Amino acid sequence: MPAQQALLRDAMQRLSMTRNAFAEKLGVSRRALDTWLLPETSSERRTMPDVVARLIGTMGLAANDASAPTELRDRLARSGRPHLLSVDVFDRDLAEEVLRVAERMEPIARRQKVTRVLEGAVLGNLFFEPSTRTRVSFGAAFCRLGGAVCDTTGFTFSSMAKGESIHDTSRVMSGYVDALVVRHPEQGSVAQFAAAATVPVINGGDGPGEHPTQALLDLYTIHRELARAGRKLDGAHVAMVGDLKHGRTVHSLIKLLSLYKGIRFSLVSPASLEMPPALVALARERGHKVAEYDSVPKGVRQPDILYATRIQKERMGGEGLEAYPASFRIDRAAVKAHCAKHTVLMHPLPRDSTAGANDLADDLDRDPRLAIFRQTDSGIPVRMAIFAILLGVENLVTKDLRDAVWRT
Amino acid sequence: MPAQQALLRDAMQRLSMTRNAFAEKLGVSRRALDTWLLPETSSERRTMPDVVARLIGTMGLAANDASAPTELRDRLARSGRPHLLSVDVFDRDLAEEVLRVAERMEPIARRQKVTRVLEGAVLGNLFFEPSTRTRVSFGAAFCRLGGAVCDTTGFTFSSMAKGESIHDTSRVMSGYVDALVVRHPEQGSVAQFAAAATVPVINGGDGPGEHPTQALLDLYTIHRELARAGRKLDGAHVAMVGDLKHGRTVHSLIKLLSLYKGIRFSLVSPASLEMPPALVALARERGHKVAEYDSVPKGVRQPDILYATRIQKERMGGEGLEAYPASFRIDRAAVKAHCAKHTVLMHPLPRDSTAGANDLADDLDRDPRLAIFRQTDSGIPVRMAIFAILLGVENLVTKDLRDAVWRT
Amino acid sequence: MPAQQALLRDAMQRLSMTRNAFAEKLGVSRRALDTWLLPETSSERRTMPDVVARLIGTMGLAANDASAPTELRDRLARSGRPHLLSVDVFDRDLAEEVLRVAERMEPIARRQKVTRVLEGAVLGNLFFEPSTRTRVSFGAAFCRLGGAVCDTTGFTFSSMAKGESIHDTSRVMSGYVDALVVRHPEQGSVAQFAAAATVPVINGGDGPGEHPTQALLDLYTIHRELARAGRKLDGAHVAMVGDLKHGRTVHSLIKLLSLYKGIRFSLVSPASLEMPPALVALARERGHKVAEYDSVPKGVRQPDILYATRIQKERMGGEGLEAYPASFRIDRAAVKAHCAKHTVLMHPLPRDSTAGANDLADDLDRDPRLAIFRQTDSGIPVRMAIFAILLGVENLVTKDLRDAVWRT
Repeated sequence: MPAQQALLRDAMQRLSMTRNAFAEKLGVSRRALDTWLLPETSSERRTMPDVVARLIGTMGLAANDASAPTELRDRLARSGRPHLLSVDVFDRDLAEEVLRVAERMEPIARRQKVTRVLEGAVLGNLFFEPSTRTRVSFGAAFCRLGGAVCDTTGFTFSSMAKGESIHDTSRVMSGYVDALVVRHPEQGSVAQFAAAATVPVINGGDGPGEHPTQALLDLYTIHRELARAGRKLDGAHVAMVGDLKHGRTVHSLIKLLSLYKGIRFSLVSPASLEMPPALVALARERGHKVAEYDSVPKGVRQPDILYATRIQKERMGGEGLEAYPASFRIDRAAVKAHCAKHTVLMHPLPRDSTAGANDLADDLDRDPRLAIFRQTDSGIPVRMAIFAILLGVENLVTKDLRDAVWRT
Repeated sequence: MPAQQALLRDAMQRLSMTRNAFAEKLGVSRRALDTWLLPETSSERRTMPDVVARLIGTMGLAANDASAPTELRDRLARSGRPHLLSVDVFDRDLAEEVLRVAERMEPIARRQKVTRVLEGAVLGNLFFEPSTRTRVSFGAAFCRLGGAVCDTTGFTFSSMAKGESIHDTSRVMSGYVDALVVRHPEQGSVAQFAAAATVPVINGGDGPGEHPTQALLDLYTIHRELARAGRKLDGAHVAMVGDLKHGRTVHSLIKLLSLYKGIRFSLVSPASLEMPPALVALARERGHKVAEYDSVPKGVRQPDILYATRIQKERMGGEGLEAYPASFRIDRAAVKAHCAKHTVLMHPLPRDSTAGANDLADDLDRDPRLAIFRQTDSGIPVRMAIFAILLGVENLVTKDLRDAVWRT
Repeated sequence: MPAQQALLRDAMQRLSMTRNAFAEKLGVSRRALDTWLLPETSSERRTMPDVVARLIGTMGLAANDASAPTELRDRLARSGRPHLLSVDVFDRDLAEEVLRVAERMEPIARRQKVTRVLEGAVLGNLFFEPSTRTRVSFGAAFCRLGGAVCDTTGFTFSSMAKGESIHDTSRVMSGYVDALVVRHPEQGSVAQFAAAATVPVINGGDGPGEHPTQALLDLYTIHRELARAGRKLDGAHVAMVGDLKHGRTVHSLIKLLSLYKGIRFSLVSPASLEMPPALVALARERGHKVAEYDSVPKGVRQPDILYATRIQKERMGGEGLEAYPASFRIDRAAVKAHCAKHTVLMHPLPRDSTAGANDLADDLDRDPRLAIFRQTDSGIPVRMAIFAILLGVENLVTKDLRDAVWRT
């Protein structure tokens, strides 16, 4: 797409403006704008005057018209309610728009800039299952937007112990806070919460079910890591290694990646821990190549992305492995033997560093290909983006930014 | 009270101003003001010029003079200390003034407006007994005023496990925070906390003792629900149903309601769970009609308010019922049989939704008379009002309000 | 040091300015400034014009040049990393500079002033061992600087239960927050945290190891209490009483006090609970007088400071005393018998108020010499100072202060 066309389209998208509104904002006729947007091959096409380009430059993100219709929230709210319960809501376009919002959050997430857009708002961070880091990640993301957080970290609400229904708990909390993050050990329970809530609900993980913000931050990381190497996701080779049966992160991630084109998936797992057939079928239906392997040497061959996972003991009951066989250990030697110079090493964390766990190994910690902490860092901008979109402020966040004065 | 007199009195009350100060603010003589305040029957009375009425209109709440003496805090502080430990501190006038402050908090509680009046202040939210929702309600209310919250949710302080006295714990915490909410399973312990504190202490429930903010939000809800129906609390018919022996909310509520005139109380409870005789006697002494019943059909007869309660298993030791007899179940059929079109259905929540509990039933959830969630919603403005009054900022809150930019 | 010289040096130190920068700020030549700084005995010395002294006065603290190099952070960061893990990092000069920063925090800690310098920053308050008050003290201090706090209060991270290393936990949390306070029952574990962190880490107590902010607030209190009585720490008589073997606060405190000159230490403990010989040797090497006693009458003789401690049952395993012998009880009678009119009574708290514990007694609570709550109150300004220094904003805090509008 030629530069002029790209500039104009990007600006309209960022400003959430129609051509009519944008033409008016620029002080030009709709017809003039239309001619600038034509392909270079068209004889009708006109070159936009430099002064207009400069004017668009000054609009930037900070000049976004806050009163413009926010359609992202509505697009997330497929079911008519502004929740984020599952990655199933995403098509490629919507996922990429969310990631673009996350990109805009980076200066805040990196503590260079401060916004107060959610000042006065309160998050209810409800963790019915312990997950300290996920809880802090959501909480910190909300704080970075200027909001305040009320946490519950117990395994249950005291009121639920007294027989209160999920419906009542959810509706009562909705009266106190502006958004709810809910993590719960039982699949489907977060959707029950959402059904009764009058504020946006984000699924922070419901047992073997979904954990959509994890999948989004994985996708965000993959995009950024590939971009650093000048590569693209369409056509990439993605190896997923480990417990692909119980790891909900790989389930959600394969769904999101399947929105792209021509991916080559190598699924590598010990016998009995394979990716569920329905997800393999889904990827194939969408035209991707999927091959399954039971050993690292066979399955990991210079992939662009190597996504390793931990054994999910807590989701297995007594059925599974206590640790990976040594052949599944991804360490310096394995990476040297099977990965390329540009292979991105990922893992949803926590990784099991106890002796004999044979998870992703510590000896890779200084390898620049190890992206696992860039991956967790991405939890902040991605969760900020989700909060901002669900609360309808994604175009306001970058207004009135100021510099952070502290240094870490 | 004629309109002119009412307007002037209300303005002086809202502005916490004496007649002298108010006359000065209006730029008129004290004598002129006095003549406007005389009853219409007086020959001395003068009609206030229209321009003065308009001037008073522009003062509104936002124009309140923040430096005016804040007497509400002093009136709550009967014991000389600005705590809220019991509903016994209230006369009707004081209770209604607190509720008027709560009314002013509604735009903030409804997330239409944002205030930062308590920016820099810190709440210590000390829950020695689990009560997630009450904790979040207090915490969110403090956040909505612009303050920050430090929670403790353990059953005990680690320092108390090391032998520290309530006195020391309270005095130490007073050095860290600006106000304390204390919930504790033992009656009287919150008063002990307050005795040693150097900052305001709010009783968030002390076992079978008091829970004054719950009683205030119940009263607030009753006022609003009756007002919606064009009715008044004086002379109303209030049915209280369920475990009236252990339910501290009904104990506090009957005290507050007894401040009004000519209430007809129908107290309906299973045998052995009756309202304590002292409270029945109190209501009668104050001129109310009190009748006691042991069945719903006999006791619930088209009341204005039906206040149902949960069995307080946790306060009974082993002495009581596990669940209500089926005849105490308040469900759609019971409401149809015994309630009026305008009957307001209330419950302090949580309600026990487990099968066989026979508490207030889910099948009423779409009945517009069911006020239970409007009731919990009211926890925010009422608790905001209490914080604002105890910290002396209730006339400042509505200054410098700005619009909330997010949407839930 | 003559007044002119002292004034100039103090101003340069407060403003963190070199002579060149300071001369420029004053609008005078470097040479003129040099002559004003000469000793009075020098023939080159010149008297500074009054107008310059007045100008310096107007600079005050609030006029500090925020862009001036912040060397305090670098001086704390002996190991090259801006952490506070141990009191061993302090020389007398650095300790006193930190306390001067704490002094500047007092108007905020006393709720007279509000700063928002850390608005947008987030603290991770990680307590792997319960210590409610210390947690709230750190949290409230961070909030008073305008920041937000994410707490973890469990005994372990859920991710650590899944085999995650301290390295990973620390690095992941570093991506979420701007500073970490870590309390942990195992000595050395906080240093492990710090080694992997990319943000400042403060040791909030690591078992029998260090608790450097406690030692700093003790030193701060001693300075202030002595100053109130017109006394100085150099040459003072400090009695430490109780369990000197397990009390890490007295270990850190004796190190800090040993930075001063000519202290007379009286160490009074039951047999088997003596101060570790290495610390006694350290104090002696630095030229202090140290005498050890096994009874209060022998050891406590009109000291300037009496620092009592609690039996550290939780650090003893099963080896030690359950309570002090009655002769170790510091109560009104003991104070009357052994203390001077100006003796400052201190204790790290909590004190054990259970019957028979024979800890510092409640009957001293109205004695003005009892400094224990002024001591805990000091936790706020001292911890604010540490946060401000480690995040590089200690010269910014007092800019743009505004009045607190609430009253406690």
